[in-house]
Amino acid sequence: MSLLEQTLQVIKPLDDEAMTRAQAHLDDLTKPPGSLGTLEDIARRLAGIRGEVPRRISHKAHILMAGDHGVVAEGVSAFPQEVTPQMVFNFSQGGAAINVLARHAGAELVLVDIGVASELPDLPGLLKRKVAPGTANLARGTAMTREQAIAALEVGIEVANDKINAGHELLGIGEMGIGNTTPSSAILAVFSGRPVEEITGRGTGVDDTRLELKIKAIKQGLAVNKPDPTDPLDILAKVGGLEIAGMAGVILAGAARRVPVIIDGFISGAAALIATKMAPLAGEFILASHLSEEPGHAATLELMGLKPMLTMRMRLGEGTGAALGMTLVDAAIMIYHEMATFSQAGVSGALDH
Amino acid sequence: MSLLEQTLQVIKPLDDEAMTRAQAHLDDLTKPPGSLGTLEDIARRLAGIRGEVPRRISHKAHILMAGDHGVVAEGVSAFPQEVTPQMVFNFSQGGAAINVLARHAGAELVLVDIGVASELPDLPGLLKRKVAPGTANLARGTAMTREQAIAALEVGIEVANDKINAGHELLGIGEMGIGNTTPSSAILAVFSGRPVEEITGRGTGVDDTRLELKIKAIKQGLAVNKPDPTDPLDILAKVGGLEIAGMAGVILAGAARRVPVIIDGFISGAAALIATKMAPLAGEFILASHLSEEPGHAATLELMGLKPMLTMRMRLGEGTGAALGMTLVDAAIMIYHEMATFSQAGVSGALDH
Repeated sequence: MSLLEQTLQVIKPLDDEAMTRAQAHLDDLTKPPGSLGTLEDIARRLAGIRGEVPRRISHKAHILMAGDHGVVAEGVSAFPQEVTPQMVFNFSQGGAAINVLARHAGAELVLVDIGVASELPDLPGLLKRKVAPGTANLARGTAMTREQAIAALEVGIEVANDKINAGHELLGIGEMGIGNTTPSSAILAVFSGRPVEEITGRGTGVDDTRLELKIKAIKQGLAVNKPDPTDPLDILAKVGGLEIAGMAGVILAGAARRVPVIIDGFISGAAALIATKMAPLAGEFILASHLSEEPGHAATLELMGLKPMLTMRMRLGEGTGAALGMTLVDAAIMIYHEMATFSQAGVSGALDH
Repeated sequence: MSLLEQTLQVIKPLDDEAMTRAQAHLDDLTKPPGSLGTLEDIARRLAGIRGEVPRRISHKAHILMAGDHGVVAEGVSAFPQEVTPQMVFNFSQGGAAINVLARHAGAELVLVDIGVASELPDLPGLLKRKVAPGTANLARGTAMTREQAIAALEVGIEVANDKINAGHELLGIGEMGIGNTTPSSAILAVFSGRPVEEITGRGTGVDDTRLELKIKAIKQGLAVNKPDPTDPLDILAKVGGLEIAGMAGVILAGAARRVPVIIDGFISGAAALIATKMAPLAGEFILASHLSEEPGHAATLELMGLKPMLTMRMRLGEGTGAALGMTLVDAAIMIYHEMATFSQAGVSGALDH
């Protein structure tokens, strides 16, 4: 059995009993029931994932997948493709936004070349796991073969498993890949059935001309490839991306190993769509971080029933929102373990109960 | 001249030149311009407030004002008034949500009895600055005298000034006071002109019967007191609260001393409305943290042109959202100072510029 099949097979539901116990404790803390909203939801979910709310998360890993996209030939991005390897270099030197925010969150940054078009030198902290030197142009044919898509999913699973084996208890995902909002909109179009115009945005900031080229490329890609809406692997291969597959693999590994995975914006959302269509239970192991500026992101989260915690008009990617979200997971754990109960504090309950 | 008058007089606009310099630096960092959204806004605003973006915020203070409300006699709250002093005791013992989240944010918690109805013993960390043992019932007459409202504003100014003198560079505000969403809705009703039903919510969780009593009490309070919409001090005295006045005072002191103040939910939002109507420039020194579940909160923030960063369905108060927001201010400062520039990192700019 392949690593992918093995991984899918061991994904089990959340532990309902542990969640009920966690809820009872949350309701006994000195606050009106439910008044800490998402902080309480996170604590309860961690109980469902881990069997109990961990005392703290001592090791966090943020996994950043880098890959290129043949569809940039259609003029869909405001930045040249050479920015992908340049940014990988920047990540390895510690100068990008995700480096700063991973430090802020106390997370290790794990940098993976899963499909950068150019050959990268050995760089500090870079895992060289290139499946292909970028995807083919999805507007003209399939972006990846089915085998490449599986290989990229398995890179994500392996990288995540390595981190989990090393004791990491929370994983974040993020990406770098010039042009990668284009495959993300294509994936969302297939799963949502929404018009491409409605769910295609300006990415890192394209002008009207490029936005039109982008919409045209996506429509053409869907027409040429005819991805099967009932087969997530077919969609991933035909109109997805290598780093999207890698992130989906991280989510599947997290679900299989019962480690929560915090997702970032639109592109990691597209990866989450693929993962949850392959294994619906995997959705329970995903924490949403922020709502990005990209118009398709809200629809992506809705499809999975996920609610974002942060609304900061961010649209950078790299996992910057996921890293900020990690600090909120820490806060939820502290709330669960450090607050006094009504009886401990001698505080009266509500009049109407 | 009174402390309040002195404070109002020295509030000056943001430093435009410093903000322009900060913007130029932000646009030179290795990310598409503006792609870090609110994180960039915060950094720019800090430059406008301080003259430059501070290297870090080494001392943060979260000021929690506790006060009671005579209007609880109308049955507007699900919790008995004795919970206010019980929670003050809980705060002083470190067991409440705000204690946990202030620790998470690395902020000192400053606890102020500005108007708790009962006499409190000496408690660790409690500043005893009681202006009155709770307000009078706003549904039956004026909640405070104008003198009491000024005294409570000045308590807020003094507490904030003490913290600023001690080197605190970021202030958070929060409150404890059973019944205090009632005066907050009354204040918002006056400033917004919106129907009371639309902007009155369930606070910490009242049922339909109490919600009706609450709406009735607010309508009656507005009819009996006829607060002057053009006189914020009149509104504060007639339908406000002691802890609301105290928080407004903290905002005014922050603006006068050029220290940013991060606000919490609906009640601190009502305090911010009072402060910004007294001194419109004070609004520039306010950072919004979260959007609470209380229906009037969004309208309150809109009136001031403020956008929340967190959407976590919280409705606890105490400043819990403000404390979470403090960690995002830290993140904004780190982004500003720790990211590489395009030239440092050798990254290409956008194709269309």
